[in-house]
Amino acid sequence: MSATPDTYPPTDRTVPTRSRDRASYDKDLVHAILDEGSVCHLGFVRDGAPVVLPTLYGRVGGRLYVHGSTGSRPLRTAGRGEDAPGLPVCLTVTHVDGLVLARSAFHHSLNYRSVVVHGTAHQVTDPEEMRTALDALVDQVVPGRSRDARPANAKELAATAVLRLDLAEVSAKVRTGGPNDDPEDLALSHWTGVVPVRNGYGTPEPAADLDPSVALPGYLAALTGPRPVEAPSC
Amino acid sequence: MSATPDTYPPTDRTVPTRSRDRASYDKDLVHAILDEGSVCHLGFVRDGAPVVLPTLYGRVGGRLYVHGSTGSRPLRTAGRGEDAPGLPVCLTVTHVDGLVLARSAFHHSLNYRSVVVHGTAHQVTDPEEMRTALDALVDQVVPGRSRDARPANAKELAATAVLRLDLAEVSAKVRTGGPNDDPEDLALSHWTGVVPVRNGYGTPEPAADLDPSVALPGYLAALTGPRPVEAPSC
Repeated sequence: MSATPDTYPPTDRTVPTRSRDRASYDKDLVHAILDEGSVCHLGFVRDGAPVVLPTLYGRVGGRLYVHGSTGSRPLRTAGRGEDAPGLPVCLTVTHVDGLVLARSAFHHSLNYRSVVVHGTAHQVTDPEEMRTALDALVDQVVPGRSRDARPANAKELAATAVLRLDLAEVSAKVRTGGPNDDPEDLALSHWTGVVPVRNGYGTPEPAADLDPSVALPGYLAALTGPRPVEAPSC
Repeated sequence: MSATPDTYPPTDRTVPTRSRDRASYDKDLVHAILDEGSVCHLGFVRDGAPVVLPTLYGRVGGRLYVHGSTGSRPLRTAGRGEDAPGLPVCLTVTHVDGLVLARSAFHHSLNYRSVVVHGTAHQVTDPEEMRTALDALVDQVVPGRSRDARPANAKELAATAVLRLDLAEVSAKVRTGGPNDDPEDLALSHWTGVVPVRNGYGTPEPAADLDPSVALPGYLAALTGPRPVEAPSC
């Protein structure tokens, strides 16, 4: 399998050793999975040992930006400037879609969509790229929010560090559908099927010091409207 | 800060470089966060580079069990038997509880609860421990399910690998509450507050080949009942 303009090229690291039929390199699928999340799990190596931390990210085209602090250990390791070595990372985003209950314990599973990105992250230093990255981080949490917040000032920019990670060595993995029980188990009387997992938002809670005349903005109504979780009043 | 019977001892790896006030070593808190999830992000080092994969886990007291396949690369690296070196890992579980929208882009954040475990994972070889671990993995997905499924047979046990990771070097990190805008931003007219994130379950979907006379078991009704996500018919 080779890369096309619509796919990422598979590599030794992105071809799984098992469940290969669940792997995909399709760019649209990879981007859609990334765009649905706002927290990734960022892995790096410190003193020879693995570290995995949850952190905010944002996507701009074929690039991811990952939030950090200038004082954080991974950022210090990455260094600054064009000649800095950067930080080898593995960035993973996972959405759980369903609990798959088979008749046999062995075939229990989850329906999920995940993306794993391998690469070397570099600290963003260009001021223009920095602003693009910060907007992307805010908009990844709430689409449209960056235009409705005070932009970072010079002091805040200096206190913020952002890592850039190009989407190059990347794969998606997706499981869908029901349980795959073995034929000899089909007569067992255990309940079997899928429990869908739903993620949504509750009613926005204004800050105590918010001027009551400030209405809920449209981008928040759009976010919390189509996926109601709390029961409507009937 | 030293350890007590109720806390895990802080180490260089578990004391964060920033937001130290969000860190906790309280065993009850750590266990509660772990028990609420079923997917962790497992980090390990392969050929000097980090790898982060989503995988199922289960907790039994002060131990975690992580699901794998005997053919998977991390499992092969860990080796088998008491003298095997094991696999240095970092296991992270994260729950997102809310989107924190400040007036300033800089103070945007998430409310979350996470646990990070550092340690060396060892492959489970004792048959009795293996059964305990597999039950824990199934019950972590749906509490009570392991008693209502066909247990693994010898062939399935041979095809399954489970890693054991003792909870020893572990910390929780928690953010709660509203935005922390700077005093000079309080008069800005941007909407500010928290959007709660809700995770729940939809109506269980029976497998196509399930005998219609098999009723939904009580542990599934309990799971999907108290957290309804789909709108009731009015």
